[in-house]
Amino acid sequence: MQRLIKKRAKKAGLPPGTLIHIGEKKTDEIKITAVDYDETLFQEKELKTIVECFPYKDKPAITWINVDGVHQIETLEKLGDCFGLHPLVLEDILNTDQRTKIEDYGDYIYIVLKMLYYNNSSTEMVTEQISLILGQNFVLSFQEGIKGDIFNQVRERIRNGKGRIRKMGADYLVYTLLDTIIDNYFIILEKLGEKIEFLEDELVTNPTPATLQIIHNLKRDMIFLRKSVWPLREVISVMERGESPLVQETTGIFLRDVYDHTIHVIDTIETFREMLSGMLDVYLSSISNKLNSIMKVLTIIATIFMPLTFFAGVYGMNFKYMPELEWHWGYPIVLLFMFSIGISMLIYFKKKKWM
Amino acid sequence: MQRLIKKRAKKAGLPPGTLIHIGEKKTDEIKITAVDYDETLFQEKELKTIVECFPYKDKPAITWINVDGVHQIETLEKLGDCFGLHPLVLEDILNTDQRTKIEDYGDYIYIVLKMLYYNNSSTEMVTEQISLILGQNFVLSFQEGIKGDIFNQVRERIRNGKGRIRKMGADYLVYTLLDTIIDNYFIILEKLGEKIEFLEDELVTNPTPATLQIIHNLKRDMIFLRKSVWPLREVISVMERGESPLVQETTGIFLRDVYDHTIHVIDTIETFREMLSGMLDVYLSSISNKLNSIMKVLTIIATIFMPLTFFAGVYGMNFKYMPELEWHWGYPIVLLFMFSIGISMLIYFKKKKWM
Amino acid sequence: MQRLIKKRAKKAGLPPGTLIHIGEKKTDEIKITAVDYDETLFQEKELKTIVECFPYKDKPAITWINVDGVHQIETLEKLGDCFGLHPLVLEDILNTDQRTKIEDYGDYIYIVLKMLYYNNSSTEMVTEQISLILGQNFVLSFQEGIKGDIFNQVRERIRNGKGRIRKMGADYLVYTLLDTIIDNYFIILEKLGEKIEFLEDELVTNPTPATLQIIHNLKRDMIFLRKSVWPLREVISVMERGESPLVQETTGIFLRDVYDHTIHVIDTIETFREMLSGMLDVYLSSISNKLNSIMKVLTIIATIFMPLTFFAGVYGMNFKYMPELEWHWGYPIVLLFMFSIGISMLIYFKKKKWM
Amino acid sequence: MQRLIKKRAKKAGLPPGTLIHIGEKKTDEIKITAVDYDETLFQEKELKTIVECFPYKDKPAITWINVDGVHQIETLEKLGDCFGLHPLVLEDILNTDQRTKIEDYGDYIYIVLKMLYYNNSSTEMVTEQISLILGQNFVLSFQEGIKGDIFNQVRERIRNGKGRIRKMGADYLVYTLLDTIIDNYFIILEKLGEKIEFLEDELVTNPTPATLQIIHNLKRDMIFLRKSVWPLREVISVMERGESPLVQETTGIFLRDVYDHTIHVIDTIETFREMLSGMLDVYLSSISNKLNSIMKVLTIIATIFMPLTFFAGVYGMNFKYMPELEWHWGYPIVLLFMFSIGISMLIYFKKKKWM
Amino acid sequence: MQRLIKKRAKKAGLPPGTLIHIGEKKTDEIKITAVDYDETLFQEKELKTIVECFPYKDKPAITWINVDGVHQIETLEKLGDCFGLHPLVLEDILNTDQRTKIEDYGDYIYIVLKMLYYNNSSTEMVTEQISLILGQNFVLSFQEGIKGDIFNQVRERIRNGKGRIRKMGADYLVYTLLDTIIDNYFIILEKLGEKIEFLEDELVTNPTPATLQIIHNLKRDMIFLRKSVWPLREVISVMERGESPLVQETTGIFLRDVYDHTIHVIDTIETFREMLSGMLDVYLSSISNKLNSIMKVLTIIATIFMPLTFFAGVYGMNFKYMPELEWHWGYPIVLLFMFSIGISMLIYFKKKKWM
Repeated sequence: MQRLIKKRAKKAGLPPGTLIHIGEKKTDEIKITAVDYDETLFQEKELKTIVECFPYKDKPAITWINVDGVHQIETLEKLGDCFGLHPLVLEDILNTDQRTKIEDYGDYIYIVLKMLYYNNSSTEMVTEQISLILGQNFVLSFQEGIKGDIFNQVRERIRNGKGRIRKMGADYLVYTLLDTIIDNYFIILEKLGEKIEFLEDELVTNPTPATLQIIHNLKRDMIFLRKSVWPLREVISVMERGESPLVQETTGIFLRDVYDHTIHVIDTIETFREMLSGMLDVYLSSISNKLNSIMKVLTIIATIFMPLTFFAGVYGMNFKYMPELEWHWGYPIVLLFMFSIGISMLIYFKKKKWM
Repeated sequence: MQRLIKKRAKKAGLPPGTLIHIGEKKTDEIKITAVDYDETLFQEKELKTIVECFPYKDKPAITWINVDGVHQIETLEKLGDCFGLHPLVLEDILNTDQRTKIEDYGDYIYIVLKMLYYNNSSTEMVTEQISLILGQNFVLSFQEGIKGDIFNQVRERIRNGKGRIRKMGADYLVYTLLDTIIDNYFIILEKLGEKIEFLEDELVTNPTPATLQIIHNLKRDMIFLRKSVWPLREVISVMERGESPLVQETTGIFLRDVYDHTIHVIDTIETFREMLSGMLDVYLSSISNKLNSIMKVLTIIATIFMPLTFFAGVYGMNFKYMPELEWHWGYPIVLLFMFSIGISMLIYFKKKKWM
Repeated sequence: MQRLIKKRAKKAGLPPGTLIHIGEKKTDEIKITAVDYDETLFQEKELKTIVECFPYKDKPAITWINVDGVHQIETLEKLGDCFGLHPLVLEDILNTDQRTKIEDYGDYIYIVLKMLYYNNSSTEMVTEQISLILGQNFVLSFQEGIKGDIFNQVRERIRNGKGRIRKMGADYLVYTLLDTIIDNYFIILEKLGEKIEFLEDELVTNPTPATLQIIHNLKRDMIFLRKSVWPLREVISVMERGESPLVQETTGIFLRDVYDHTIHVIDTIETFREMLSGMLDVYLSSISNKLNSIMKVLTIIATIFMPLTFFAGVYGMNFKYMPELEWHWGYPIVLLFMFSIGISMLIYFKKKKWM
Repeated sequence: MQRLIKKRAKKAGLPPGTLIHIGEKKTDEIKITAVDYDETLFQEKELKTIVECFPYKDKPAITWINVDGVHQIETLEKLGDCFGLHPLVLEDILNTDQRTKIEDYGDYIYIVLKMLYYNNSSTEMVTEQISLILGQNFVLSFQEGIKGDIFNQVRERIRNGKGRIRKMGADYLVYTLLDTIIDNYFIILEKLGEKIEFLEDELVTNPTPATLQIIHNLKRDMIFLRKSVWPLREVISVMERGESPLVQETTGIFLRDVYDHTIHVIDTIETFREMLSGMLDVYLSSISNKLNSIMKVLTIIATIFMPLTFFAGVYGMNFKYMPELEWHWGYPIVLLFMFSIGISMLIYFKKKKWM
Repeated sequence: MQRLIKKRAKKAGLPPGTLIHIGEKKTDEIKITAVDYDETLFQEKELKTIVECFPYKDKPAITWINVDGVHQIETLEKLGDCFGLHPLVLEDILNTDQRTKIEDYGDYIYIVLKMLYYNNSSTEMVTEQISLILGQNFVLSFQEGIKGDIFNQVRERIRNGKGRIRKMGADYLVYTLLDTIIDNYFIILEKLGEKIEFLEDELVTNPTPATLQIIHNLKRDMIFLRKSVWPLREVISVMERGESPLVQETTGIFLRDVYDHTIHVIDTIETFREMLSGMLDVYLSSISNKLNSIMKVLTIIATIFMPLTFFAGVYGMNFKYMPELEWHWGYPIVLLFMFSIGISMLIYFKKKKWM
């Protein structure tokens, strides 16, 4: 189960800009890759130390530096110095319990958001914080270092030089990264949608307390998803409004597209939430229905056998003068009498539609 | 049951503008019809290949090209090239899991919305995505290719030349198409309204778990309807505001009318939702009432026969010295005693209004 | 029960402005009355044909034409031609399933809203659609033709020439008509308020499933009332803002008053809705309480008599060697023993406050 | 219990500005007091007829006329004539079913709001409508005439000449009156807060249907309180914005303070509402828990004694050949057997934590 | 348990600006510390009387006076006179039942907010009202005087002269104090988050009425937390907007960071609230499930033994002519018959999945 709140508290009382890594260390080694490209040129390199990437900074080509793992404070500090990042930005990159947000620092724009993976083995969502920094001719991206890099697809596209990406600026690269992340949300939503559809069937055929537990867990997932995705709407809308000179007008149309995807994700989450609420109601009333049917069985049995047992008890009394006991046909008559009581009770319940 | 979310995920990671058809192929053959008209002229033609429609583009008359079936990517690409559509628009037309929206690309306006049919045999709603493109003197419309074309009525009206339609521009044609689609929503709402009224009666006379299931399914339908219709409000409001030169002021008054219809649809959906919530409450309390009445039966039976059985048991004991057993009138007295206990219990329950 | 949605669907696919009457024909004959007045002059006339009213149009005095019954399409068409009404306005007047709204057509303002009557015999609300058209020196009003004309009071006031009405313009007449309609809402609210207060008492003393049914029906009424009244707020606010030259500033102060009444109506509806929700909760928990008290009775009876019956059963066994059976005081001792068990059980339940 | 809606309906259909008193007559005699003051001068007088106060009008000192009882229409009419009040204002003062509101008539501002008292004997809230009119150098206040005048404190402060009040204008007097009224809301809230805290304890120790009734009544009180206080926010915000020349800038800072108090009252009401909702949930689940514990007792008793009674019944059968009956130790063995069944059942229930 | 509402009522009716301490006296002695610093200079002093701090006022260095304990009215009055505070500000500082708010008085800004501590021994939240006044070159802070001063960390940072704090203005000091307080909220949230996670596990394994009580108390805490934190959003947003000359642009970026933290706190509170709601649903349905399983046990027992007891009763009847009783194998046959009934019942329940 995902932790509700990370150990952010250990930062309490420290001066702003103090660099402390918050969250689990997801890999031991951090991995830095640099891609340098423009319409004609393409260079890709895995860096051993962060210093190697500094020469890229002043070249006119677009430089994309991806840092996989944010727990090495020194590396980040050097990078921050080189690219002139505000200490608060570095602090936010290290603190992996950030809210999705965008911040315009003039020379660069800082975006932080959540990447979501669906772990098939544990059927759980895994969260990774992604920080993006968009400068004039560079893009920095920071991942927490979870296995499997979805940015590979983007790197591949740059490598091939197909499509628009090599012809456009750093803002288009950031758009591409955002688009990749949001496309991934659809995969999560599909998985959850399948779960919900499966549950809907189970709810009709065989609802168990386990069903409720799954509904409850899905609701929880929805709360987290919503918390992650909701502010994305504003993030992209801020970029699209084009107030920053870092975002060109030609990219605006693509950002509008990705904004539209975000709204679609949010809509779908809301739909799922409402459906889960509806399922809870159905589950609760199915419990009540079950109780009713149990009580009906009990009541039918009791209503038939209690009177019969009483009559048997009456003729089991030891009074001296009980004329019926002496009758030759007494026993079969009583049996017949009892039998007819039982039958008439059954007919009564059939009529009441209890059976 | 409608799928909650379409296989959009297969697009994840592809560059923007990549054309992939998402959704079921609803017909094998796509059908293209072109209508060319102005106040005096009228021409209608079913096209074999998309190329045939290109000459229409530069004529001053209004050209309406309707494409029924969106799974042939090539056809769309050619059409897009001819009319200068942005790759993102083509991508959205192909992706039949779009949110209702409007996008102004300067030279043309792109509108995507949902057409809803009510399948009488399966008593289910069927969704079809409609894309409309409004240019200076042309309208392109794209359907998914479900049987039954509601645009026939519009075509008929153009053919007859009655009414305003031949005298007005391409924007009026788009208005007419929108109006036709939204009018269809009222048919769906009427069907659902009838179902709800039927359920309200059933809820009073004979609520069963099946009733709950229908309420639940209707709630689900409402969630989907709402999701489809809600953004329409903004779509039409954007058109009406008349910021685009493509929408003339004279059409504004008609758009206001269709906007009003949209609000009416949304209002009705909200009303239905609230009524369904109310019905769930009634259903739940009717289950509880049923349980109470079952328990009353059980309690009445037990309360009458348990004491009686006890007394019968007492006189069935085998003690040597039980003087009552020897009495001549012992048996009838005990019977009378038991009878009076039973009667007094019944009177007690009558008083408590349990019977 | 009021129909949820009127047969609007039959209009689907027809060109805009097509005149079709939607709704029940409430009277067979339509009734047209014309009132012509200014500060000194007063003329009143019942018209046989609509043509008779045309001369009034160009006179400087204020003309009020009231049409009672909207199913004669021809009459409306002629009236529309004479006063220059847009076909969409005529369409809306005929369609009695309109949402409350205001539309400014420049030369005239079109207002449509709902009049509500409370039918005392069937204890149901009856809805009538009222359309008002405010021109420079004329007011047209359209009713569906339900028996009982609330506009009589207004006509009387004009006749008498008392108060402000004869001295002011057509906008003041429209204000007066709106005020009359909204004052009527208070009558409905009072009736419903009395019902709710009656129910609150009944809920405490004797809640039955019928109580729930009434709560449910009241909730339904509230949904409809709210749907009718809510948009009125905007209608009057639009008029009051005084953007149209048809509404004079002196009338503004009166419109503010009627706006205030509308808010008051909406507030009261919300209060009623919240109270009804609260009552449902009380009802549900009173059902549960009842179940608890039923179960207590059953449990008390079972807990007392089950052990007793067992002991009676033990001494009814036929073992050869059961020494107790031979004791002389065996029977009374056992009776005493049973009696003391019963009493101690009762004391136990008293302590547990079950009795 | 407070009436949900006052007999406002009797006004329906009358021309606007018709003066009719709505509400109960709270006192027989109306009481008029006039206070005339500036920084140096102070004069106080109880008036017999309203005419006596007219000379005050044109003096430069600030005149405060308080009318206690609003059912004498004539008095109000005269006052209205003298101070130039609009007929709609007089109508609103008479109609004691007003919504809290502010209306700027240019020469004067009209404020109407609710004073709330807590009746200790009946533990009910009592409402009194207060109308305030702020003119250039006069303040008119109207009360319904409930015993106990909270404005006495203000009068006392003017008399003493302490503090700011004598140095400032009529707007400050209105502020002081508003502040006094809103301070009174805190008293109500404290009373209700105490009730809620008491209920919270009772809910844990001993929830009864009476507890539910009190929760329900408190919820009802909250609905009314909220309805009264919510619009106050806007009233004071309108005054504070300082658009009227009648409110001076120096008073603005005090109005901001009273605005803050209003927000505080609203916040507290919302908090109480949420707490009451939570308490309802706890109550409902405590009923269910009680039912569970009742059913456990029944089930334990039945599960122990039903098998035992059966075994006693078996050995009470009258078959000729039942070898066990002949055994010498048969009886004690059976007793032991029964005893061990009973004990093992008890152990089972202990394990299941039912006991 | 925290009091719902403090004894604010005792202020009712007093003139504005009357200084009365509301709330418990948290310490007997008030403690005043003054810190005077700029980039080079640092001076710290514990003051005996408030008068000692007056010389600081006119120095150019930044002066921070912290008053721990607000129940000495005289001290506050003197301080207020010296720094020119409005009487309403002093009144608000004394009244410890303030809503979180910001007020701009031109020469200084007044901020009041709540500090939250988590009392580990009583597992309760403790609230302390903090008032901050930001002037040109001074900051006044007021605490209620709870043990443990979180401002020590800030004082330490000033002492050390590390970081930015000594180089920046009074506004940065206020930012630092706000940041410290909000960082503390994260500690509270972590504690509550741990409780919630613990409860989630318990809810699955062993839900008891005590679990419900804890859920209820947590919900209550959330209501209070939300009430305290929600208005902080606006407070910081007002400061950040930079309309006051007292807040410099360079501090804006830090305020944006603290604003972000506030949003994060609010988001987390909302998440917790939703999770607690979900847990209540799970709890309620787990009670119902328990009831169902209890009823199943009862029904199984009753359904098996009632028929058996009846058959035993039949053969316990004392009729003269009951041929079965004479049969030699009668007894074992009946036993076998009973046994087979019992077994078939058990099979039936197994099939129905009741066991």
